Amino acid sequence: MINKLVKKIQKTNAPVVVGLDPMLSYVPKHILDKAFAEYGETLEGAAEAIWQYNKGIVDATYDLIPAVKPQIAMYEQFGIPGLQAFQKTVQYCKEKDLVIIGDVKRGDIGSTSAAYATGHLGKIQVGSNTYSLFDEDFATVNPYLGTDGVKPFVDVCKEEKKGLFILVKTSNPSSGEFQDRLIDGRPLYEWVGEQVDRWGSEHMGDQYSYIGAVVGATYPEMGKILRDIMPKSYILVPGYGAQGGTAEGLRPYFNEDGLGAIVNSSRGIICAYKQEQYAQFGEENYADASRQAVIDMIEDINSIF
Amino acid sequence: MINKLVKKIQKTNAPVVVGLDPMLSYVPKHILDKAFAEYGETLEGAAEAIWQYNKGIVDATYDLIPAVKPQIAMYEQFGIPGLQAFQKTVQYCKEKDLVIIGDVKRGDIGSTSAAYATGHLGKIQVGSNTYSLFDEDFATVNPYLGTDGVKPFVDVCKEEKKGLFILVKTSNPSSGEFQDRLIDGRPLYEWVGEQVDRWGSEHMGDQYSYIGAVVGATYPEMGKILRDIMPKSYILVPGYGAQGGTAEGLRPYFNEDGLGAIVNSSRGIICAYKQEQYAQFGEENYADASRQAVIDMIEDINSIF
Repeated sequence: MINKLVKKIQKTNAPVVVGLDPMLSYVPKHILDKAFAEYGETLEGAAEAIWQYNKGIVDATYDLIPAVKPQIAMYEQFGIPGLQAFQKTVQYCKEKDLVIIGDVKRGDIGSTSAAYATGHLGKIQVGSNTYSLFDEDFATVNPYLGTDGVKPFVDVCKEEKKGLFILVKTSNPSSGEFQDRLIDGRPLYEWVGEQVDRWGSEHMGDQYSYIGAVVGATYPEMGKILRDIMPKSYILVPGYGAQGGTAEGLRPYFNEDGLGAIVNSSRGIICAYKQEQYAQFGEENYADASRQAVIDMIEDINSIF
Repeated sequence: MINKLVKKIQKTNAPVVVGLDPMLSYVPKHILDKAFAEYGETLEGAAEAIWQYNKGIVDATYDLIPAVKPQIAMYEQFGIPGLQAFQKTVQYCKEKDLVIIGDVKRGDIGSTSAAYATGHLGKIQVGSNTYSLFDEDFATVNPYLGTDGVKPFVDVCKEEKKGLFILVKTSNPSSGEFQDRLIDGRPLYEWVGEQVDRWGSEHMGDQYSYIGAVVGATYPEMGKILRDIMPKSYILVPGYGAQGGTAEGLRPYFNEDGLGAIVNSSRGIICAYKQEQYAQFGEENYADASRQAVIDMIEDINSIF
């Protein structure tokens, strides 16, 4: 799957992932009205609205991008119907041949991580039948529990030729509270980065490892250091755009080969129609606004090479 | 909810929580056969089996215990039907007046943590209607992203009078990989513990804070230090029994008032019928074996006072 991701990035010339993180307040009125007319102002209605909203964005952008990153929390907040919309979104993106990064940030003790890995990346046996569940291509994983919390995910990835992005340095303002604390003179995120490099060496693709890292666009100096620590790991970079990360700051996340990083934008793309810059599209044409925002983002990022 | 938890612990004289972490391999044959006969060897069949299995255990133990802790990963691995079984289990335990600790180990950047908090502890607005979703009473939270990842959970807890258990020192063998690393001469888990104490001071119940901590039974010396660092936080203690924690080692997790800790056992209770000690109950009477295992666990833990 890492080979597919790299190939798709090269083909689209777009080291970009669209974060499908729908909020009900983002959904244009015509979609919301239709969903509520059909299902009422219910969880099912909300789930239908975010699914139709996603579908519009995917239809308008899938030919431009290699991957999408649905954030499961935005679906989980609508309970079971929301999670059904998550599953539908993942399946639909697969049909469009997009790589799916499930932003699930799971992580637990060994046997429990194994269950999460099964649910999101693997298959489960029920009697004599085997089922794929949420079936993302990559999942994000929290490293706080150490190797035996991460290993079961790596094991499932090996079986399924899938991958992970491990949280190393997150994009949020207080990420430094624990992640930046010095241990033997070096911040915790560097120690985590070294482990990612080690975990990654166990599951290599052609050029890059199946085991990548999350490093926020908001911390470019740290990105540079982490790039060197994990030369074979793809870096998933959140925090571009709405959170304040700039294209100029993204240079250090890439390797000399122009590969090695994939930059996420969520609100900046899916909510483009609400920005002044794209207001001329109008709410009805929100998906066209998203398409234009993707084109602009790709151009912006490619300007640094 | 922390007041209810404390009162229920005092009333049952049982600082004990039963971990409802069902695996299909734990489910007795008669339950599995019935579920498969009704739904086939499908995800729905598996979900029905784990739900009926849980129901038997809850029916046999609810009068003895204050709380249950369903581990969502064990349900998520069966996809949507599994999560429906999770929801059914939570609702059923509520009807039995048990306190529900959702072992979800979520945690993300601010806006995303807010969505998780809504999904697990809060309510969501859809048009003019308001819905409770998974509706646990407590949730476990991963602190790796720092204060702005935890704060949205605390905010929802304040509104809903619900609580959290933040991962501080987990019970697994490699928990020390990052959690034990020394920062200014003190391990990371102590720094996290100090933050838990600070977060907890913002949302106090009568005697204890709504914001508790997870500290594994497998590390009693660390439990002692963390008890002192977070005097007002309840400690949820996993790792007793199957993972190797002993009653003797649990003393330091409690305060002088005999309160302040609640000990989890999962496999040791729900899979009691598979242990030699309870084999005489037989597979059909697995729930009676679980009841006896709860009685024995309560006696074992109370022996330290």
